[in-house]
Amino acid sequence: MDVLSYTKLTLEDFIDKYRCFLKQPSISARNMGVRECASLLRDLMEDSGIYAEVIQSKGNPVVYSEVESRESDKTLLVYSHYDVQPPDPINEWIYPPFEAVIVNGKVVARGASDSKGNIIAFLKAVEYYVKSEKSIPVNVKFLFEGEEEIGSPNLPDFVEAHKSLLKADAVVCWDGGLHPSNRPSICLGVKGILYVELRCKTAKVDVHSSYAPVIINPAWRIVWALNSIKSQDGRIRIKGWYDDVRPLTSEDAKLISEIPPEDEDIVRELGIKELLGGVRGVDALRKLICEPTANIAGLKSGYIEEGSKTVLPCEAVAKLDFRLVVDQKPDKLFDLLRRHLDDEGFRDVEVVKLGSLPPSKTHPSAPIVQASSRAAEETYESKPVVYPNAAGSGPDYVFTNILHLDSVWTGCAPPFSKAHAPNEFNTVDYLIKGVVYAANILREFKNVKTKT
Amino acid sequence: MDVLSYTKLTLEDFIDKYRCFLKQPSISARNMGVRECASLLRDLMEDSGIYAEVIQSKGNPVVYSEVESRESDKTLLVYSHYDVQPPDPINEWIYPPFEAVIVNGKVVARGASDSKGNIIAFLKAVEYYVKSEKSIPVNVKFLFEGEEEIGSPNLPDFVEAHKSLLKADAVVCWDGGLHPSNRPSICLGVKGILYVELRCKTAKVDVHSSYAPVIINPAWRIVWALNSIKSQDGRIRIKGWYDDVRPLTSEDAKLISEIPPEDEDIVRELGIKELLGGVRGVDALRKLICEPTANIAGLKSGYIEEGSKTVLPCEAVAKLDFRLVVDQKPDKLFDLLRRHLDDEGFRDVEVVKLGSLPPSKTHPSAPIVQASSRAAEETYESKPVVYPNAAGSGPDYVFTNILHLDSVWTGCAPPFSKAHAPNEFNTVDYLIKGVVYAANILREFKNVKTKT
Repeated sequence: MDVLSYTKLTLEDFIDKYRCFLKQPSISARNMGVRECASLLRDLMEDSGIYAEVIQSKGNPVVYSEVESRESDKTLLVYSHYDVQPPDPINEWIYPPFEAVIVNGKVVARGASDSKGNIIAFLKAVEYYVKSEKSIPVNVKFLFEGEEEIGSPNLPDFVEAHKSLLKADAVVCWDGGLHPSNRPSICLGVKGILYVELRCKTAKVDVHSSYAPVIINPAWRIVWALNSIKSQDGRIRIKGWYDDVRPLTSEDAKLISEIPPEDEDIVRELGIKELLGGVRGVDALRKLICEPTANIAGLKSGYIEEGSKTVLPCEAVAKLDFRLVVDQKPDKLFDLLRRHLDDEGFRDVEVVKLGSLPPSKTHPSAPIVQASSRAAEETYESKPVVYPNAAGSGPDYVFTNILHLDSVWTGCAPPFSKAHAPNEFNTVDYLIKGVVYAANILREFKNVKTKT
Repeated sequence: MDVLSYTKLTLEDFIDKYRCFLKQPSISARNMGVRECASLLRDLMEDSGIYAEVIQSKGNPVVYSEVESRESDKTLLVYSHYDVQPPDPINEWIYPPFEAVIVNGKVVARGASDSKGNIIAFLKAVEYYVKSEKSIPVNVKFLFEGEEEIGSPNLPDFVEAHKSLLKADAVVCWDGGLHPSNRPSICLGVKGILYVELRCKTAKVDVHSSYAPVIINPAWRIVWALNSIKSQDGRIRIKGWYDDVRPLTSEDAKLISEIPPEDEDIVRELGIKELLGGVRGVDALRKLICEPTANIAGLKSGYIEEGSKTVLPCEAVAKLDFRLVVDQKPDKLFDLLRRHLDDEGFRDVEVVKLGSLPPSKTHPSAPIVQASSRAAEETYESKPVVYPNAAGSGPDYVFTNILHLDSVWTGCAPPFSKAHAPNEFNTVDYLIKGVVYAANILREFKNVKTKT
């Protein structure tokens, strides 16, 4: 029986497990349900014939498993995450985010696409090999963490401490989805990230705003500090910020030129007039892939309810995420940011690091790139869209820098699946394709010629 | 029996009524309990022998009452407000804001000082004259509105429509309290206010922050727009903003020089190092009284909970209150603000007016200034601190400009009573003094030589 037939035959059980997985909240940003979800995931895996263990880390537990092959000595390390983003703004969800309501083959839930859908699909592929074929093409090691959505703060230490356990030939970071054109997509790396909070606290309590002529207002301080960080043309004004940006290689430029433009899809999907600065086509792609960013993810000060209140706040907070490209270094940039604020007169603005990940890339010629590209084409009957790196971030460097392995980022989430936004969804059809894709990756990785 | 004895004799009933008044929320910014509070106030007044009526206005009702004197033809219009500020941030209250918990003579509640304490004290004074003395020194007209905390949007129309009903010889705006030095204080006017919301909405939904290189971020737009409005030296950068500011008169400068400095009290109370720019003494006072302001009262965009979320917000909002001094005009300044944002390239930033009041002043030589000053000195045994105008705002212009009456702002709230902040309070002792002060104002206004 082929993997598609097997999946269809066991579809009800597959979707039941998926919904069960989705209904368990695992919001790492709020430490809500994460441990419960790790245990649940282990149980779901064992139920599929995949023996797994919950390993404590310094933070949320890792769910780890090894499945041995009798066909090949090669080992593929499969990384993903079972934690999810907070569901805010909660009142914009059509269905509750943790009920996994299924309507006409569409499943709406936080984590449906990012990344519980991916996990459940890969597990099904391995279940197919183990239960139906009684043989798996390569050794598989699963590493599912519970802190990806808060920047994987403990994954580096975990990987460092378990180097021999995690010994493998390559890594598939199974945390992606299809391109807006509905072709599969593979990212050969990620941007890095530096997530900080700027805080300014000026007094013990809020006061009446009539004191404004003589009392410092932390909201103004934060506004001016932010203004000093980025100018209206989008340029980050922190001295030295761009110094370590690696110039675009001709190989990467070629990859980017082959990616179908996605600007029109984005514009339509978001209901906006145009992209920032009116960029289009390959220019938009180059910005998306190559540009370091300074994004305000949150702003809060004073009275934020409906109507008016004449208050002078005692505190203001801005959440900022900086996306980084190779070879920018988060720790160095954090220091530059602090120095910048000091130099600009903002010693009263505290900078708190909430998370960081260095950028990371794998060369386009790596065997795992070839194997996953072939698997993608077989599954989806179209060539994958290959990104030199994703516009987003992930803990890729723990594989490329600590384990010294090639690594690709791919997955089976539908395009525009509203990851990180209200009404995140997946569909049964995309999940089934995902199972086939995962099964094909394992087979192609067995067949690909490796350097060793 | 004198007013103090009468008040002490009936103290239990007095405090019961006060707490009953406080327990009824009347949050005009959220339209919460306001009508119920108007009815309750009328009932409380009638229970004190003061016949009152609830008059519908275009907005929240006005509670109105007339008490006739057989001693004098003079009429004093007493204005105050029964609505209160929202209690946010709610979790910083030691006792719930609408339970009016009383501990050792201290009453903690939203509205305890601003301005339900004032209202209940003046009512007690009139009750004393009516019930105990069977005679009141001057005619009294009470005008209690329910929209002061949202900028009195319907009071001008109400006063305009009821000019003959409100005919009087002077106005006491009974919505103040004692000076930080614990001396009584009288303000001969108010600053104006223009309260606006700046809004920027850029897309239908929040998106993953990896899109930051190509999607406009409304939080950055609001930050840059705000930055264009005020520079770090405190100067408002909107063209023409200061054009109508009336230069300081020598009479006002003299009044300011006689006000005891309050900078050290403010610094200690708020737990701050120094006032803005390190100003002290009379310089701080002059800024507080004479300076137009641009205050950020609220900022909100994106993810504002604990921890990190990598989101690119689709909306950002800033609440701004501008305090105005004579002869600045709110409508003109609103237009200047809109034009400024257009000129600076912020056509995408919407400006919504949430409320406005023109500034207003009464001359220091007015009879009601003399009467209330004498009453204050008799009651508190120290000369009142007289401000040319308050640092705060109020609908004074409806009395000075529409009714063409002299008007003073005073009251009996304790210093640092946390008006508009968590844990607002009053004390039984201050309330009793307030009753005496109100009774003395009526008597002194009868005796003062008026222009007529």
